[in-house]
Parts: sequence; structure tokens; C-alpha cells
Amino acid sequence: METNPCNNPTNTGFTVPVRVSRESRPDGTIVSINGVEVGGKEVVVISGPCAVESSEQLFEIARTVKKGGARILRGGAFKPRSSPYSFQGLGEEGLKMLREISRETGLPVVTEVMDTRQIEMVSEYADMLQIGSRNMHNYPLLKEAGMSRKPVLLKRGMMATIEEFLLAAEYILNQGNTQVILCERGIRTFETSTRNTLDLGAVPMLKRLTHLPVIVDPSHGTGLRYMVPPMAKAAIAAGADGLIMEVHPRPEEALCDGQQSLYPEEFMQMMADLKKIAIAVGRDISLP
Amino acid sequence: METNPCNNPTNTGFTVPVRVSRESRPDGTIVSINGVEVGGKEVVVISGPCAVESSEQLFEIARTVKKGGARILRGGAFKPRSSPYSFQGLGEEGLKMLREISRETGLPVVTEVMDTRQIEMVSEYADMLQIGSRNMHNYPLLKEAGMSRKPVLLKRGMMATIEEFLLAAEYILNQGNTQVILCERGIRTFETSTRNTLDLGAVPMLKRLTHLPVIVDPSHGTGLRYMVPPMAKAAIAAGADGLIMEVHPRPEEALCDGQQSLYPEEFMQMMADLKKIAIAVGRDISLP
Amino acid sequence: METNPCNNPTNTGFTVPVRVSRESRPDGTIVSINGVEVGGKEVVVISGPCAVESSEQLFEIARTVKKGGARILRGGAFKPRSSPYSFQGLGEEGLKMLREISRETGLPVVTEVMDTRQIEMVSEYADMLQIGSRNMHNYPLLKEAGMSRKPVLLKRGMMATIEEFLLAAEYILNQGNTQVILCERGIRTFETSTRNTLDLGAVPMLKRLTHLPVIVDPSHGTGLRYMVPPMAKAAIAAGADGLIMEVHPRPEEALCDGQQSLYPEEFMQMMADLKKIAIAVGRDISLP
Amino acid sequence: METNPCNNPTNTGFTVPVRVSRESRPDGTIVSINGVEVGGKEVVVISGPCAVESSEQLFEIARTVKKGGARILRGGAFKPRSSPYSFQGLGEEGLKMLREISRETGLPVVTEVMDTRQIEMVSEYADMLQIGSRNMHNYPLLKEAGMSRKPVLLKRGMMATIEEFLLAAEYILNQGNTQVILCERGIRTFETSTRNTLDLGAVPMLKRLTHLPVIVDPSHGTGLRYMVPPMAKAAIAAGADGLIMEVHPRPEEALCDGQQSLYPEEFMQMMADLKKIAIAVGRDISLP
Repeated sequence: METNPCNNPTNTGFTVPVRVSRESRPDGTIVSINGVEVGGKEVVVISGPCAVESSEQLFEIARTVKKGGARILRGGAFKPRSSPYSFQGLGEEGLKMLREISRETGLPVVTEVMDTRQIEMVSEYADMLQIGSRNMHNYPLLKEAGMSRKPVLLKRGMMATIEEFLLAAEYILNQGNTQVILCERGIRTFETSTRNTLDLGAVPMLKRLTHLPVIVDPSHGTGLRYMVPPMAKAAIAAGADGLIMEVHPRPEEALCDGQQSLYPEEFMQMMADLKKIAIAVGRDISLP
Repeated sequence: METNPCNNPTNTGFTVPVRVSRESRPDGTIVSINGVEVGGKEVVVISGPCAVESSEQLFEIARTVKKGGARILRGGAFKPRSSPYSFQGLGEEGLKMLREISRETGLPVVTEVMDTRQIEMVSEYADMLQIGSRNMHNYPLLKEAGMSRKPVLLKRGMMATIEEFLLAAEYILNQGNTQVILCERGIRTFETSTRNTLDLGAVPMLKRLTHLPVIVDPSHGTGLRYMVPPMAKAAIAAGADGLIMEVHPRPEEALCDGQQSLYPEEFMQMMADLKKIAIAVGRDISLP
Repeated sequence: METNPCNNPTNTGFTVPVRVSRESRPDGTIVSINGVEVGGKEVVVISGPCAVESSEQLFEIARTVKKGGARILRGGAFKPRSSPYSFQGLGEEGLKMLREISRETGLPVVTEVMDTRQIEMVSEYADMLQIGSRNMHNYPLLKEAGMSRKPVLLKRGMMATIEEFLLAAEYILNQGNTQVILCERGIRTFETSTRNTLDLGAVPMLKRLTHLPVIVDPSHGTGLRYMVPPMAKAAIAAGADGLIMEVHPRPEEALCDGQQSLYPEEFMQMMADLKKIAIAVGRDISLP
Repeated sequence: METNPCNNPTNTGFTVPVRVSRESRPDGTIVSINGVEVGGKEVVVISGPCAVESSEQLFEIARTVKKGGARILRGGAFKPRSSPYSFQGLGEEGLKMLREISRETGLPVVTEVMDTRQIEMVSEYADMLQIGSRNMHNYPLLKEAGMSRKPVLLKRGMMATIEEFLLAAEYILNQGNTQVILCERGIRTFETSTRNTLDLGAVPMLKRLTHLPVIVDPSHGTGLRYMVPPMAKAAIAAGADGLIMEVHPRPEEALCDGQQSLYPEEFMQMMADLKKIAIAVGRDISLP
């Protein structure tokens, strides 16, 4: 962008794709998920279980996170699992539970879509489609999501460069859908003491390069519960527009990702702390 | 440490070495650099040029960073450079300049030591010895630093795991020197749009595993000037005890690392912002 | 597998999934692609252009590689490209060209499938389905490939561990399709002077852990033409059952991956050299 | 080097430093270690224990590897260990054992030097100085090695790019010592099922870029005994001028790296196989 080598936006000098480029919308994009706006002054927290396990579980968590200040409910019905023998999600049944609990709590819901053939069905139940880290390079899926009219939460591939991440978003915008939120969720590195390495530098870089809102997932980004609150604070301090994180009332019984899910009381405490950071950087989080 | 798998401090379950382990000093260690304490309530900022270039340059920067709120002056006299044809530093002459300007400004100085044979000389001039990223695995140097009576700033190897970082610190403590500060400065990953990937997750993990103070270097961690302020804020939000960063009055003329050095006015503005974050996490930065 | 720590098959000790485990078929699996057997004594070379560009181009290359000793023709009709603005392949038209040229030359063809909705169509034209690196984690696609009756060439994800690679293959076998060939094609590391880092250590490890044939792609694994012949030799020396590589008569005009495509005469020369290595490790390559 | 983008020697286009550049010595350099030449037609095998443990152990291994066809004896007297509590080597006592057994067997010896202060002493006993992976960025050590008159075996840093590796060698040549052998020994990646990822692509790239001989260490490069023979074969097939590998009569009792050390009988068998590969690529290994 700039020509002074002392003000380069990146070390590698790649060209930002035209539709996602901040130059094309200098004021930034606000994505609206059934009335909840991401990309404005308010920092938005998305929370819920890793996977929808049952109607009771989901309802218990939804009430908790709403009380804590979350504005959007997350929960997986289709789960991409490394092993074919791991819990694969409840499928359409899980989607129905999400829709029902959305109605009861008033929280919009976001859930993952893994296959082009699922987009139509998932769109009937969800307020935002999530494209997960393993599918960031799934171009047919990106194109289909671009043809849908739903907002899309696009997670960075665990081994995708910033350039590839922006190009993946460009696939969606190029089909006419500009309601895209980018999510940094940790990259794979040589360091294995955390599940992934949360690349918070992606936040200021993406905010500079693109007009799309940027959120952070400290649950997958670290894989360790006690690291979620400090990294959530750090994400807001770095300029993130929102957070997505996992909460479970009994993590030790969770069907997936228990080790990184917050206990409800931890979530409550953290939200109060996050508000302080948001204010310190000139933003806010509305707590109930 | 814990036995509940839902409360693991790391994914890999390595054993923290005995002398650096937080269990051995649950209240944490405060390192004192000629009266400036790191590891207490105050967040300490260390700043200065990448390399000492001249007495005038150093004095100009020292006054600037002191005015901005830095408590310790940094500056390289011996520079580890990838190429034998790059500027290698002023050597002892640079050390003398550091000492003189320390006397004039009252700021303690930290500077890098690259060779076991330099430790005695550098110790005559510096208040704290820095062991750089490329020497984190230099065990003879770690042992010699452990035998010195100077505080040591130990930077994480750019491709060192947290476990190896703690073991490197253990080499120093094992020789009787407990005045060690750990510094996260970015790791090498597949992502090259930033110079390194700043691993802020290292901050909460190290704070949990060890009693040693932990600081962050957002200059080397990103390599890009505009990313330094947001990542500095994020580091404090994540729990860092301090920061080390590069400032240069004319970065485009700097003999090294100009692209990541802050302009003086950026440094001033950033310090005011950092204070707000420090307060939001229950800490403080004393500004002049 | 073993209990003597001095004979561990891996450093991490993961459990090999049951259906792909060598223990379940100690003698190894031979995959037959329309009569061409991979996994036996013969080392099989698959070659062709990166993308099908035209009938003439494809026919020219097919004759060349057949003459050189290739036994199977490769060519992309659906191309996964990082940018939506890059050439995306000829689609079904390209598949028809592949089929026609297969008929004329007698070479079976392998081509990539990127979407569950394409499997039926691609199966009509191709003798083997390729699942590319970017889709190794695409579980719905793996399941559908597992339900097809076509042999599957599964490429390792550029970010996938050996454990994840085996689990991806297990998804296919778990649906009843045991005709799976594994392909090491380079992983993403900090080193960017090559396009990827070809992990030839994957060959002996996979051969020990699983009964499936293992081949290597030195074109994508290096991204540089002059490195293809030496790495092809190395792959056979390491125990690979085959190779897949790109050839183009005018690489400088190729619509994709020209820099890594061999000139026809290079291919010819290389094949003679590969035969020598094959014989040196007790195998063979039948040249015309 | 070339200007046709289809014949680039690297993806990143870095400039090869002048003294190591192949352009400065197109015919290549032959390094002579007390009469044993590396870089000529003969592929040279260096072998011995990880660490010198006792005179008896060293003598037993030296006779074995000499009988198998090794031309140079390796063995560590100063060992760089991640933990201060691991065996650190026998020091000068170990050097004396190396010298004595060299005299008895006629094998020249190579051993690691970790500190500038050790170079003089080690030079009295060793025929070649090894600079280990952890010290590839230790510039004072490189300079001192450049001032010595001994041949230097420079191992690639586990975190070093090819460009940095060449620059490290340039530090040595720049001091007047051109007797440098480069050793690829595995890099650190996300894959942890092997100790390191052996980057055999480094061999053809280095052979093209520099006139210095290139050898490979399949022991450290994999960390697993059964992978050593196939990767040794692959290294020769890729064009390596030599190999360095660990042998131990009772690996399960070794004081370090037992899991990657070959049993004597494995070494013998492997050498016969390596000779076949060497001949297949137009080189040779002289067996006793």
C-alpha cells in the first residue's frame, strides 16, 4: 500500500485482493447477525458449547452465556473430527435445538457447515454460517457460502497465511456476499505445549489490510482453559471486534474440547474484566 | 502440576525444572535492575535503539524514551547479524556510550552479550546482561551468565519450545543467579508476513509455570512499526510484567531494524495508552 | 507397536487406526488402477500436466510421458486455487479430454475431486480419484470417496501430521473402500526457499505403520524443476511405491505450476536414472 | 542466478553470499580431513557414538564402524544438552580418548566445539571441528572457527533457512578458512512423530548454490533407528557427498540418543546397501 519501506503493512509485500481490501471500504464493514452488529464500537462475544450435545445442555449453557453478556450463541451440529470414531455431532437434530433455543433466548446462532450439500439446510436454522479452519481452503464451500444470503464467520486455516486467509474471504465476496467476519483461531507451529499458537498479530494486520470485522477464538487458539481469559483480554487490547469461546457447565464430561471450555463462573468473571479492557481501548461491552 | 486433566497447565505435560518452577517460589520473583523492579505491580518499559550508532543518537533516544516513561535503556553494542557483511555493532566503544548516558539520564542499561569472553567486559558497563534469541541454546554462555552477579534478560529462542526456554533459564539459576527475566520475542513459523509470530500465549503459560518475571518484545515479535502499539497493549492485557521495544528518531536511517522502530511521537502516545491497559488489569505504569 | 523404547515406530506414540494399520494386513495392499498395480515390486510413475489446458496439450504430454515410462496419466480438471481469479480448470470438458486420451493411449487417468457433488461425475471419467492436500481434512469428501468403488489417491495435507494423515485414510477405509494410495507432497514449514518441505521421512514411517502403498510428489514438494529428479531418486531410495510429477512441453506457458514442471527431455533422462535406483533397492521400473 | 523465472534456483530469490557461492568455484570444493576427501566421487561415511562414554565403548565402536566402511570417527566430548541435569560430556578426557583411538584405528576424528574458549584445546585433539545445530547462529564461534586452520563441519540450525545456513558458512570463509562441510540434520516443524524433519531438498539446493560439500545426518534428522537406513539411502540418491550417523553397541544403555543409534549389525548391512545406491548415482563407497 504505502511506498515508504519504513511503513510497509507486511514483510512480504503481497497484494491485498480487491474486494476485501480496506481501500475499497475505508470505513470498515459492519456485519449484522439478526440485529447484532459486529465491527462497530461494541466488542461482541459469541459463546456456547463446542458441540450441541442435548437440548438441556444447550439451554443451560445458552442462559448462562446470555446472562454473562454473550450476544450470539455458538454450537456445533456437524463436527469436523480428525478420527472417524469420534463424536461427529447431532446433525439436523442439533440444528433444530439451536433454532429452538435461539427463539427462547433471543440470541442469534452460528453453527458450522462442512459440505456444500449442507448449506441450504443449515441456512434454514442458523443466523450465521461458520466455515471452520479445516475448510478455509475448501473453495466450492466458500463459493456456495458466497451465494447464500447469510453472514459468514470464516475461520483462518490452521496453516494458512494472512494472504491466503484474505483470498479465501475474497472467494465469498466475489460471489456477492459481503457479510463476512474473519476469525483468528490459532495456527500450527512447532510449539505443542498449547494446542495452537494464537497469532494475535493477525488482528492489527487484518484490521489494516481489510474492511472486514476480525474476531478471535482463544479457546481453540490455546486449548487450555486458564489461558482463555488472558488471551481474550489481549485480543481486545490488540483491536479485535469480538471473541468466540467455549463454555460448558461440566467440562470434564464434554463430548469434545472439555479442556478448553470455561466453567460458567469463569465466564462471568471474565466478561467483567473484558469490559474494562474494551473501555481502555475506546470501545465497550454491554453487560446485562 | 495438577492431576485433573481438565486443568492441565500444558498440553504436553512436561515437568517444569525445579529451580525455575513457580512451586519453588509461589509469590514470584522481583528482579531489580539498579533499583528498577520488574515483576511487581508496575509494568516496566525498556526502550532504546536497536544498535548504538553514536553518542548523539543514543543520547537523543535516551532522553526521548525517558520522557515517555521508559525506566530502562536498551541498545546493542555487539550485534548478532545473519550476514558477516552487516553492521556488527560498535563493541566496547558502544558500551562506554551506554554507561555514560546511563549516568546522565539515570536510566539503567541492558545490552547483549554474545560470547563467554565478553561477559566480564560487558558486566563493567551494563546493569543487566541480555542473552539474545540466537544464543538461548548457547549453554556455556548461560552458565557464565549464571556465575555473574548481574541480572539477566533471557530472550526465547526463535524456535524454542516453552520447555526449552525454561530449561535455558534453569542453566542460569543452577549456577546461583536467580535474577532472570524471561522475554517472549516471537517465534519462527510458516507465516512470513510478519518477521516473527509473537506468541503471547507464552505469557500466561510462563506466569503459571515459573516464578520469573516475563516481558514481551513487540518490535522483534512483529517487525512492523504499526503493529508495535497494539501488540504492546495486548502483552500487558495478557499479563506481561514489562515490555522491551525499539525507538529511533529517524528509522529510515537506522543501521538496523528501522522498519520496526517507533518514531518518538508514536512512543509517547503509546505509553499513555499502555497505562490505561495496565490499570484495567490491576497494574500501573508511572509516567513522568 | 513395540514395547522396547529403543524400537519405537514414532516419537509421539500415537495409536495407528485399526483399518489402515499394517498389523491388519502385514503383507501390504496392492491398489489396482485399471490394471496398473501400485504397492508391488514395480515402482509406478504417474505423470502429466498440472492442469488440463486443451486436448492438444494433453495428448502431447500423454504421449511423451507414456514413452518415458509413466504408467498412469494425471491432469487437473477441477483446480483448487488460492485466488478466485486464477485459472480454475476446464471442469467436465477437461474430464472428457482425459477420458478420450486415456482411450487412445491406454494410460489410466487420475484427477482431483474437490466437492462431494463432483464425485459421481468424476467417477464416470477417471480411473482413480485424487483428494488433494487442501481437502485432506474434508471429512464429508473422504466419506463419499469411501463409498465410491474407485481407487483413491489421498494427498497429505500440507499441515497434517502423520497421525492425521492416517486418520483421514481411515475415514475412507471405514466406508468400505480399501483401494487407497497415500501421497507425501511436502509440508509447510518456516523454510520458504522451496515451495514446501518434502518430508521423505514420511515414507519409511508410513510403510511401517500402514499396509497402504505410499507415493511421493516431488513437483509440489519442492516447487522447483531442477530439484524434481534428485528428490524423485531419493523417494525411491527411501522406499516409495511410486511417484507423481508434472511435465509440460513449454513450462513457461503453463496455466499453473510451470516452475515445477519438467521438460519432456528431462523426464526421459530422469526415468532412466530412476530405474537404476529402483534396481539398487531391489525393485524395478519397466521402461518401454 | 538465472533470469528465466522457470529456472529459478530458489522460490525466494535471495542472493548467495559471495565466498560460498558456486559461481566463485564452479568445480566444487574438496575438503580433506587428514587425508580423507569429502566432496569428490567417493561418498564418505562418518560414524561413531553420540557421546564419548569411555575408552572401551569408543574403541569398540570405532573398530565396528571402521570395519563397516566408515572413514571418519565422530564422538562428542562437549555435549549441548537442553537440560543442565543431563550428561554434559567427558570434556578434555573425552578428547584424549578420541585422539588415542584415532591413532590406533587410523580414522580421523570430528568432535563438537561449543565455546570460543574451547577451540584451541579441541584443535589439539580433533581433525575436524564440528559446530552443532544450536550454534549455527553463534557468530563469535563461527569467526573463531574461520581463524582456525582445521576443517569445519557446520550443521544447519534446526531453525535456520538455507539462506541463513549459507551466511553462517560465509562467516567462516570470510576469515580465510575454506575447508567447510555443510550438514543437513533436520529442521523443526509442526510434525513431532519424528524428532526433526529431515529436509533432503536442502541437498540439491545447496549443491546448486554453493561449492561446499554437503552431507546429511539421518540420525538426528529422524530420531528413530529404523528410519536411518532408508533416509541414508535417500540422502545419497539426492546427491549428498557424505553421511554422519550414530552407532552404539547397546543403544538401550547409551547416555544419549540411544533411540536413534544403529546396532553394529544394522550399520554393516546398511553400508552394503548404500554402496549400491552410490553406484546407481555414479559415485562409490569403498568398503574394506
